[in-house]
Amino acid sequence: MNEYPPSRNFKSDNVPPVCEAIMDAINAANVGSAPSYGLDDFTHSLQAAASDVFEREVAIFPVTTGTAANALALSQFVPPYGAVYCHEMAHIVTDECGAPEFFTGGGKLIGFAGADGKIRPEQLTNAVALAQDMGVHHVKPAALSLTQATEWGTVYELAEVSALADAAKRHDLPVHMDGARFANALAHLGCTAAEATWKRGIDVLSLGATKNGAMCAEAVVFFDRSQARDFERRRKQAGHLWSKLRYVSAQLLAYFKDGLWLDNARHANAMASRLAGGLQTLAGAALLQRVDANEVFVALPEPLVAALESQGFGFYRWPMNSSSTGVPIRLVTSYATSQTSIDELLAAAYGAGRGSGEAS
Amino acid sequence: MNEYPPSRNFKSDNVPPVCEAIMDAINAANVGSAPSYGLDDFTHSLQAAASDVFEREVAIFPVTTGTAANALALSQFVPPYGAVYCHEMAHIVTDECGAPEFFTGGGKLIGFAGADGKIRPEQLTNAVALAQDMGVHHVKPAALSLTQATEWGTVYELAEVSALADAAKRHDLPVHMDGARFANALAHLGCTAAEATWKRGIDVLSLGATKNGAMCAEAVVFFDRSQARDFERRRKQAGHLWSKLRYVSAQLLAYFKDGLWLDNARHANAMASRLAGGLQTLAGAALLQRVDANEVFVALPEPLVAALESQGFGFYRWPMNSSSTGVPIRLVTSYATSQTSIDELLAAAYGAGRGSGEAS
Amino acid sequence: MNEYPPSRNFKSDNVPPVCEAIMDAINAANVGSAPSYGLDDFTHSLQAAASDVFEREVAIFPVTTGTAANALALSQFVPPYGAVYCHEMAHIVTDECGAPEFFTGGGKLIGFAGADGKIRPEQLTNAVALAQDMGVHHVKPAALSLTQATEWGTVYELAEVSALADAAKRHDLPVHMDGARFANALAHLGCTAAEATWKRGIDVLSLGATKNGAMCAEAVVFFDRSQARDFERRRKQAGHLWSKLRYVSAQLLAYFKDGLWLDNARHANAMASRLAGGLQTLAGAALLQRVDANEVFVALPEPLVAALESQGFGFYRWPMNSSSTGVPIRLVTSYATSQTSIDELLAAAYGAGRGSGEAS
Amino acid sequence: MNEYPPSRNFKSDNVPPVCEAIMDAINAANVGSAPSYGLDDFTHSLQAAASDVFEREVAIFPVTTGTAANALALSQFVPPYGAVYCHEMAHIVTDECGAPEFFTGGGKLIGFAGADGKIRPEQLTNAVALAQDMGVHHVKPAALSLTQATEWGTVYELAEVSALADAAKRHDLPVHMDGARFANALAHLGCTAAEATWKRGIDVLSLGATKNGAMCAEAVVFFDRSQARDFERRRKQAGHLWSKLRYVSAQLLAYFKDGLWLDNARHANAMASRLAGGLQTLAGAALLQRVDANEVFVALPEPLVAALESQGFGFYRWPMNSSSTGVPIRLVTSYATSQTSIDELLAAAYGAGRGSGEAS
Repeated sequence: MNEYPPSRNFKSDNVPPVCEAIMDAINAANVGSAPSYGLDDFTHSLQAAASDVFEREVAIFPVTTGTAANALALSQFVPPYGAVYCHEMAHIVTDECGAPEFFTGGGKLIGFAGADGKIRPEQLTNAVALAQDMGVHHVKPAALSLTQATEWGTVYELAEVSALADAAKRHDLPVHMDGARFANALAHLGCTAAEATWKRGIDVLSLGATKNGAMCAEAVVFFDRSQARDFERRRKQAGHLWSKLRYVSAQLLAYFKDGLWLDNARHANAMASRLAGGLQTLAGAALLQRVDANEVFVALPEPLVAALESQGFGFYRWPMNSSSTGVPIRLVTSYATSQTSIDELLAAAYGAGRGSGEAS
Repeated sequence: MNEYPPSRNFKSDNVPPVCEAIMDAINAANVGSAPSYGLDDFTHSLQAAASDVFEREVAIFPVTTGTAANALALSQFVPPYGAVYCHEMAHIVTDECGAPEFFTGGGKLIGFAGADGKIRPEQLTNAVALAQDMGVHHVKPAALSLTQATEWGTVYELAEVSALADAAKRHDLPVHMDGARFANALAHLGCTAAEATWKRGIDVLSLGATKNGAMCAEAVVFFDRSQARDFERRRKQAGHLWSKLRYVSAQLLAYFKDGLWLDNARHANAMASRLAGGLQTLAGAALLQRVDANEVFVALPEPLVAALESQGFGFYRWPMNSSSTGVPIRLVTSYATSQTSIDELLAAAYGAGRGSGEAS
Repeated sequence: MNEYPPSRNFKSDNVPPVCEAIMDAINAANVGSAPSYGLDDFTHSLQAAASDVFEREVAIFPVTTGTAANALALSQFVPPYGAVYCHEMAHIVTDECGAPEFFTGGGKLIGFAGADGKIRPEQLTNAVALAQDMGVHHVKPAALSLTQATEWGTVYELAEVSALADAAKRHDLPVHMDGARFANALAHLGCTAAEATWKRGIDVLSLGATKNGAMCAEAVVFFDRSQARDFERRRKQAGHLWSKLRYVSAQLLAYFKDGLWLDNARHANAMASRLAGGLQTLAGAALLQRVDANEVFVALPEPLVAALESQGFGFYRWPMNSSSTGVPIRLVTSYATSQTSIDELLAAAYGAGRGSGEAS
Repeated sequence: MNEYPPSRNFKSDNVPPVCEAIMDAINAANVGSAPSYGLDDFTHSLQAAASDVFEREVAIFPVTTGTAANALALSQFVPPYGAVYCHEMAHIVTDECGAPEFFTGGGKLIGFAGADGKIRPEQLTNAVALAQDMGVHHVKPAALSLTQATEWGTVYELAEVSALADAAKRHDLPVHMDGARFANALAHLGCTAAEATWKRGIDVLSLGATKNGAMCAEAVVFFDRSQARDFERRRKQAGHLWSKLRYVSAQLLAYFKDGLWLDNARHANAMASRLAGGLQTLAGAALLQRVDANEVFVALPEPLVAALESQGFGFYRWPMNSSSTGVPIRLVTSYATSQTSIDELLAAAYGAGRGSGEAS
């Protein structure tokens, strides 16, 4: 089962263990009795810590999966007859088993194409215009959802976020950001968390920590606390209010403390950059997406892919349209990826490339 | 916030920390990379461990709240137009913010009265007969849900479970058991887990560990694996499939190992029994329910209740119908409750009783 | 199938044919082409006609079943985690197969007892207080629903409506009125439609016409048009927006015209009154409810009930708590019930009573 | 409002009045009392009539909108975590305000492209393969939905239906047919209703009559009665069970009687054919789709479109991809469209064409 040696596992950023600082925080929280259901000191402190991080009085609700964070956040804004506009390959569309539709009681996701994982303002504008033309027969425009970093490992520039949020606001649509890899995006952008979100028009953020070193810590962050009205009941009704919530809040407190989240993300991004830099010099290799965050999408010659697989490196062959003749694969780095492991993979690739070089 | 000293906190069995063996297991799981979404070794082993415990090939699905376990389990059997029969004070009715209705897409809970927290077969039979008379206008009988131990700290005897399940089966109704405190019930009954469940007609069990020493470990257990069809998608769509599931499965493995779950539960039950035994000898005290598990419902004179509160003992004044003139309160013990803390509370009560004795 | 001669059918007010004036209106609407989906002249005129009837600019949405009207109206106010307070025997609780739960995506109906079919303000106040005590664990108070006339054929006095609406408003709860038999209630009260509704605090009315002479005409009436926002999409999404809506709107226009609705209702009420007056003089008879509208609940000796059944009179044996030794039955009159048919039933009852007199 | 003279209204087949035979049937049903909720003689007879038409014991459930028929039919087969495969421009996708998602409690529609309104078996096969690859993260393949006649006025040939149904059956997917214009398709195919449906693998049909002369008559037809289990409760819970159902059933009885449905449809188809034949001889005109049923999609020079509009002809400018330089419009014919009205439109078009001929 645990078939890949940790150092060779590039399948996802959810396969590493919990990072030490966060594990320490969990253990430290395990003392004495504490009020249940979020009335504990940890959860209370988290409100302040998150408000500090985002330079604004936010309302933050810890949950333990990204699917829960996304679906709950959207359900706060989207009625059963509402439409969420997003990228056609967004996690909410393809990887959450219909959670947004379920949590909204029937809402519809309308996905836009975009080769780099990003959508454009005019796609939103056109879709809203169509909905308005069709009136009551069509679902009502209800929200825009952006993924930051995107599913393709790219990151929206701040101006791109602004342009999309502005288009949304012209139609009174709230803007959701799926930030399963928000720290990776922030590390890339080099701006503040505030500048990356509410200062650019984001209303609600699904903030992920699990892929960046936590055990089970995600959060829904509302930048206007009044928009969080009754959200705690949505969370409860969906079975996402823990009785011993301190153990999640403690993770998020450690995540924010002393910039751990950004350190972890910067490391993951640097490793992805190193990996991409090495791979693209291989004969027959083609980088398929910019490497802004911690994912590398690259096409490699089939023999080389097979050679890496046979040597125990873990990654996914990834279905993608590409003009390359190679096999598209995805490699993901994380806080736990060592430089050594990158170099080992590259060395293996070079070795295999040499062996199969004439053929490829 | 953390206002009650651990040793004086009888508010709930969800206020203590995680027990040592389970915390050790969590830490031990934090090594190396592991496949995500339940494809890890821990989750794999859990299937075998649970099948061993229940003496049958079960399908077990870890989740992290009791509300999720209950609502997901019921949604597997209950259509939007279906009725769940249960006690009117069941957790699913009063304490889950409508989760079963939400997860079933509109199902209805029909609650029966029962002073001891238990329902009777004839209540079920009569309700089904009414539904059949009313036909299409009425919701369709779809499931029976029993709480074991009950909300009132009592435990259904095995014959009572059988009689209820038999009544359900006569109408082709599946039987769900809300076992948030299943270990406490099992410790009281002294039978095997199999005898307490599927051998008595239970189809699906919400098995709780969180109140009995775990951090966040509940599970839905199907005794007929074919009834679990597609359940993994329900869990995923509801946002209850963890990416790093090994950390929940590890808790449940530790929970079952060497009978930890029963040891914890037996201790909690014994502490409740000691507490009840002591309290009922107080002047003016009246025990309001049998103490089969780890909850004590007792009416005490108001001055005594106030005295205990002022001395920092934590418990709830509990709305109950009672012929006693005293104030009904609830005290809950757990694996972490020490005999010393019981004796301190009793001593304080005796002291306060002497002080206010003439008045009460 | 059509087993009861029309003149002997007292089973329900939905068994008679469509009254002549409404059938004429349907036929008159069947001329030429008309814009679909409610953009026709009839539907346009209906807004004005209803506003005239209710002395206020209302928003009226025709639908074709009472269940749709009730469930759609409630879904406008009640979130998935919300509670609707109502009578425990309300149609929405017992006779709509869970429609309110389904349309609200999981809302809960909390029913109060009340021997005369009415609920009391203190029941509401207590229930809201309980919900507030329990906080996030409990469903959120979201609406009050009154049935006027009630399921027991009684009618809330205006002061009773006010008292209930006032209690609701103290907790910011909107008030829904299930007016499946609203015309019968209005005929009894003798007040204006405005006085019976928004002037007493009603926010939204399910207005029934089908039981009072129409073919398929119900309507959701919002007294504050701003509360109807997006309601047309709810109706559409639920499949309740007709393409040829003119045929429903024409029914409602005829219903309001020249007071037809009140004429029909007054006749039905008068027939019920005559029926009750006659029945209660029978030996062994006991009237079980006040006859304010068009339903008679009466207990009669078993031989008499059986005699009426055997002579082809249609009515239901009705499960009711009663101190009477007789068999409770329900008889319903309508616009189409003739005085002759009442007198025939009474004659048959007297005849049977004489025959079985000694026994009863 | 009623802005188009009937003879010039080509906006939709839902704008004409009810055809005479169906209106007569409604009036004829308006006699005496009848059991409510579908226990009447008309509804009983309808089961036999439909079974006769489809040459098999079917289960037929009358409802009154096409959206209700489609969404209810799909909800019988599709769980909240299920996917319905269909054309990307299907009515269920674009024109039902999210009804299928709402009725299924969160199901997802996955639409395929297809220039002629039809989908291909390999699109289904590929989509199912993708879902299987993604496993629990993706919605579960749950149904195939075909529209017959399609939204583009084309009709699937029988072999095309078979090929799609066979592909579906290879993955155990039930097949739904949206037959809002089923009679038009059948008239085109010239086969029996059985050959067009269950003999080709259709499991459930949304049978429309409203666009073909009825007032409000659609039906859900199950070809395997065992698949209709509990469907009556779905219909009831959604508010789609009429109390006076006889008035819908009477429409459907008249619809089937003496082949009225096919006569109406053949006439509508013939009028569309005549219209298309005339229009395509105009200078600058381009027929955009085959005219198999009763819809004509044609591109005409802008001045000609404007001229027709100014002369009071009603039709929609229709957004379509086309290589033509003209303006795409949609014209719909119905049972009520007269040959004279076609010829008037053509004459007007020729007149306008001559006037603007040099320019176009």
